[in-house]
Amino acid sequence: MGDTTLGDTKPRIAIVGGGVVSMILTFGLIQRKIPVRVYEQASGFREIGAGFAFSACARHCMDLLNPSVTEALKRCGAVPISDENEKDNYLRWIDGYNQHRLDDLSYQKPLAQIGGGGFRGCRRDQFLQELAKDLPPGVIEFSKRMDTLEHREDGSILLTFADGTTAEADAVIGCDGIKSNVRKSILGIENKASYAQYTHKVAYRGLVPMSAAIEVLGPWLANNFHHHIGPGSHVTHYPVANHQALNVVIFLSDPGPWSGDSSMVSEGSRDEVEAALHDWHPKVRNLVSLMPTKLSKWGLFDLGDYPVPTYYDRSVCLAGDAAHATSPHHGAGACLGLRNSVEVAFDTFDKMRRRRTQWLVNSSRRVCDLYHQREWADPERWTKADTCFEEIRDRSYKIWNFDVEGMVQQTLEKYEERLRGQPEIAEGFSEEDGYTL
Amino acid sequence: MGDTTLGDTKPRIAIVGGGVVSMILTFGLIQRKIPVRVYEQASGFREIGAGFAFSACARHCMDLLNPSVTEALKRCGAVPISDENEKDNYLRWIDGYNQHRLDDLSYQKPLAQIGGGGFRGCRRDQFLQELAKDLPPGVIEFSKRMDTLEHREDGSILLTFADGTTAEADAVIGCDGIKSNVRKSILGIENKASYAQYTHKVAYRGLVPMSAAIEVLGPWLANNFHHHIGPGSHVTHYPVANHQALNVVIFLSDPGPWSGDSSMVSEGSRDEVEAALHDWHPKVRNLVSLMPTKLSKWGLFDLGDYPVPTYYDRSVCLAGDAAHATSPHHGAGACLGLRNSVEVAFDTFDKMRRRRTQWLVNSSRRVCDLYHQREWADPERWTKADTCFEEIRDRSYKIWNFDVEGMVQQTLEKYEERLRGQPEIAEGFSEEDGYTL
Repeated sequence: MGDTTLGDTKPRIAIVGGGVVSMILTFGLIQRKIPVRVYEQASGFREIGAGFAFSACARHCMDLLNPSVTEALKRCGAVPISDENEKDNYLRWIDGYNQHRLDDLSYQKPLAQIGGGGFRGCRRDQFLQELAKDLPPGVIEFSKRMDTLEHREDGSILLTFADGTTAEADAVIGCDGIKSNVRKSILGIENKASYAQYTHKVAYRGLVPMSAAIEVLGPWLANNFHHHIGPGSHVTHYPVANHQALNVVIFLSDPGPWSGDSSMVSEGSRDEVEAALHDWHPKVRNLVSLMPTKLSKWGLFDLGDYPVPTYYDRSVCLAGDAAHATSPHHGAGACLGLRNSVEVAFDTFDKMRRRRTQWLVNSSRRVCDLYHQREWADPERWTKADTCFEEIRDRSYKIWNFDVEGMVQQTLEKYEERLRGQPEIAEGFSEEDGYTL
Repeated sequence: MGDTTLGDTKPRIAIVGGGVVSMILTFGLIQRKIPVRVYEQASGFREIGAGFAFSACARHCMDLLNPSVTEALKRCGAVPISDENEKDNYLRWIDGYNQHRLDDLSYQKPLAQIGGGGFRGCRRDQFLQELAKDLPPGVIEFSKRMDTLEHREDGSILLTFADGTTAEADAVIGCDGIKSNVRKSILGIENKASYAQYTHKVAYRGLVPMSAAIEVLGPWLANNFHHHIGPGSHVTHYPVANHQALNVVIFLSDPGPWSGDSSMVSEGSRDEVEAALHDWHPKVRNLVSLMPTKLSKWGLFDLGDYPVPTYYDRSVCLAGDAAHATSPHHGAGACLGLRNSVEVAFDTFDKMRRRRTQWLVNSSRRVCDLYHQREWADPERWTKADTCFEEIRDRSYKIWNFDVEGMVQQTLEKYEERLRGQPEIAEGFSEEDGYTL
């Protein structure tokens, strides 16, 4: 940021990585007139058409950061993923495996539903394009892949990029995703937490034309968000593209190691999905038969086996997937990143946020394991399997009903206590309070 | 209850079993002038000296049922299990396995603490004796082991006992524990949910004189509730007997089948515990060395593998352990039974309470598995293991902060809706709302 003119003592912030959390954070800093520069390794916003859904809670955070963000979300056509007029009936889980009525083979037993959430779905690339339109010129620099990060004696940080150029900043926020280089620079290359970890679940994604989906599922099922649950797998679908298409994702448990390469995505086929679901409910099999024969197969990685032990080192901090990449089963990965970015007092942030964000990583794995319970295939254990929905509801409400203002207020108070020299905040105790004789 | 004089149309209630939930429920019915008779198979209150702790939430329920119950609890010397003046520092978890400081081998790392709970500990037998003092004569009949339960054409129920006598009632509540005969009569002897299920954890219990415990643990650790956590095991202790003794319980994971007989308790030895904890922190080992050489070894059973699919059949209902026996890791088994007993409209009760109570059964198993994580023995996975406390706190608060009045109010409303012929209450959907084409 050598060329950024600084009129006051506000710290110069460098953000490494130009994804969703990075962009929203950047808008938050701009709103507060804090100098910021973003370094993205790609030559432009990456064309990943993956779907994203932001909860009401996440959109509230966006508004707190900068109302331009919510405006951009609206402009890119984000629509409700489910009928919000249906109180207490917003996300739905139904039996995708068993046939409960021999006299009606199309019958699927409803298992549970919960209200709230208020998700708006959009495409990742479209959202980033809309955000870029409101960004002041020169804030993002593309084709800047960070190589090294050096803490200098005067407290500033020198970033060196693969193209040989450098940049200086007073603080660095690593928003560089699950394979974060900033994380590696904090933890070291020997640390297992520096690398993405396989959750032993894979996801196949594809779109089905809505008219064909309705023939197979009926209009209500097709036009609202549903999970089909069964042993070792679940199938999630919701309408996209203004209800012209159904986004279908099949999640399979995979006890072995990830079979693809380090890109975390490989070529998959409909045949593989059909083999895995060969004894599932006919409606699910009929839906799968409508999918393209070639499907992208995503290995689901997170930072759950070896969570990041600290989210900061001096004036370098991690945010979003770089800090706490999660599997997608709560639909809250990026939503959580938003909350992180509200306050940049890094050590306070670490103490206030680490355990909760890592809870989410674990919770997402736990929820998928509950979905995939083998008990769904054993009528004697259906009651046992069904009990999971009490837990799933609690976990969802914990995420959706988070008191953002309360957290920000408490973080600011703790931050000011720290500035006044109060003792360290401990989530548990501090180590100094340990038990000795 | 043939000899109970009935002055009005209130239903005659027979309670099978004379344990803690039964007694508290009986006091609740007496307070509401509902005729009740209790049939207990033993010849008197059983002399089980097991410790019991009631949370503030459970004691609030007792007060709602009948203030005599809370009075009895006070009279039997129930004392706080931990220092309640320590806000946010009431239940504590510390590392019982690792030595984090080579220069101070007595140091134990604190892992987490949470506030609230407000538990009062007492001995089961003493509490029952105190309750019995306030019970009107003739309400309990001892030496009455229920053999059969017959629904008669007029809607009444005939109970037949092992001594050949019978009793009649308009409704029966099975408070006959984890091996409930009432449950068997509802579900049938072929149903796996009719039998207790092994949680693959065992507990060794014993008392240590407080003076000796303080020499090993120091006064703070010895006088307040603590869990020592480590791979495959945890050790819980809290003061009893007016701080003259330390109640110590060692929980071990046991992947195999239960090695004892159907009584669920067998003879164990300190040697077995010392072998299991041979590589644990020296303070834990020193504490164990103070225990008696013979220890009772409890197999921990619950209804978690095959939960009870319905809590009632016509005018027969299950409550407490008969409905949802749980392992003890939330310290909330009997507390949950209390809430069940407030409202006896059985089908409403079943719909309102079944999923939540079975959540507790699962949650208790889950919490013990989190305690026993193998990750505690692997420094690279300590951060991962530590993340469990966010979940444990949530689970505890869900239990402790339950809105009893709200639940009762909602249950009454649902009950009245049902009486007015409204459609069935569904926790998920009702099956009739299923998905067909």
